[in-house]
Amino acid sequence: MKVAFLGPKGTYTHQAASEYFESFEPVPCDSVEDAVESDADAAVIPFENSLGGSVGESVDLLRDKDLTVTGEQNVEISHVLASRSETIEDIEKVVSHPQALTQCRKKIKEHGWDEKESSSTASAAMSLDDGEAAICSAKAAEINGLNILSENVQDKSSNTTRFLIIGGKEQKGDKTSLILEPGKDRPGLLANMLSCFSGHSVNLAYIQSRPTRDGLGNYYFYIEAEQDKGSEEFENAVKCVETYSEVKVLGSFKGDKK
Amino acid sequence: MKVAFLGPKGTYTHQAASEYFESFEPVPCDSVEDAVESDADAAVIPFENSLGGSVGESVDLLRDKDLTVTGEQNVEISHVLASRSETIEDIEKVVSHPQALTQCRKKIKEHGWDEKESSSTASAAMSLDDGEAAICSAKAAEINGLNILSENVQDKSSNTTRFLIIGGKEQKGDKTSLILEPGKDRPGLLANMLSCFSGHSVNLAYIQSRPTRDGLGNYYFYIEAEQDKGSEEFENAVKCVETYSEVKVLGSFKGDKK
Repeated sequence: MKVAFLGPKGTYTHQAASEYFESFEPVPCDSVEDAVESDADAAVIPFENSLGGSVGESVDLLRDKDLTVTGEQNVEISHVLASRSETIEDIEKVVSHPQALTQCRKKIKEHGWDEKESSSTASAAMSLDDGEAAICSAKAAEINGLNILSENVQDKSSNTTRFLIIGGKEQKGDKTSLILEPGKDRPGLLANMLSCFSGHSVNLAYIQSRPTRDGLGNYYFYIEAEQDKGSEEFENAVKCVETYSEVKVLGSFKGDKK
Repeated sequence: MKVAFLGPKGTYTHQAASEYFESFEPVPCDSVEDAVESDADAAVIPFENSLGGSVGESVDLLRDKDLTVTGEQNVEISHVLASRSETIEDIEKVVSHPQALTQCRKKIKEHGWDEKESSSTASAAMSLDDGEAAICSAKAAEINGLNILSENVQDKSSNTTRFLIIGGKEQKGDKTSLILEPGKDRPGLLANMLSCFSGHSVNLAYIQSRPTRDGLGNYYFYIEAEQDKGSEEFENAVKCVETYSEVKVLGSFKGDKK
């Protein structure tokens, strides 16, 4: 099967795909949006990081596009500082994906390095100028013949990114993704919607508010419930929420316990 | 009074400060963190944008540091594309703050421009190479003698950023910021906490979940309640939430109705 992800090869998303699928034909794409719109059988997208928080673009894609969520994969992110230079003193600027730069904020501040954004951690490693170092995977450093000047450069050791699997075969599972789009706000609305879940014994694993892009103060909610979408509890919770809000169920999947 | 903000002069944060304070001595800083840690009398920080969503770094600073929120200021963001070049066909790369790049995703994709991150929209305008254009305010283009190649380059016209005022005199108001840090999750916890507010007739204007940076699956919540912190309703709601969670009240302020 073909699996699309934010390329080039060597990104953490590529690594997530390798951990989730036993074998696949890699389809590296230029953006997360291109990955979910490609004609591959499935796509893997970064969704949240334990330091940087949710990936807003990915949450918005789930709202905007007609996508099915069929899985998740947690990947431990351990960044290295890699460069053509041989000593860390030569480094003036670090290059990486914005989320990776966020994850290494302490080290960057400590050394006073300038920052340069790249479209992925892997592409950062591919085109470095003098005095520049990439924050990337050890794999990407190896592929590009770079010197590893420092390992584990992220702020905290427990840095994990959760990826979602989009498309492929619909799954049964212990988690279900859904989007709540309540339209006009009124007092107590979110409390009432969430009470539909707790009232029907459906626990929530994750909630994220995002702007609807229709002006400040209007939000939609991405939620993950700890139930299969076919369960009676989940169906009742959704019927209850539908009295308050538009609901889009994106699919069930097995939670990654790692 | 001295007011700190993410510099250089000409940033939208500088503009927000000018709209909020009648007169002040500007203290441009290198980062949002430096601004809240400076010895100025107050600081202005970007907090959420109607397209890009919340500014994670700012939310985390409110949790991590001992700060008081005393005001908010909404600013309409209208970006221009500004360059030393005279025609848009010469542009190969756009330079701006990551949030501004996110806000102009459509235009950037349409033209196939490469992206380069800068620490602010104003700094992007200060050091452009050939073939580069900054996404910045008209003010920053003017200060730096650039040609405006296109106006209103953001995805949607209703693009507003909300800034928070940190420090200065404590205020009474119709909004109060607080942080809920529930520690260990259990079924229905968020629904129960939010019911404390609705049960005491305190509406919520905003809620944002953020990772505690202690591993995937642990979150804290930034909330804005539509009550002064001295009101009986608010005090009762907080007493109720405190039976579920640690609560840090950050201050009350007058909501910007704009």
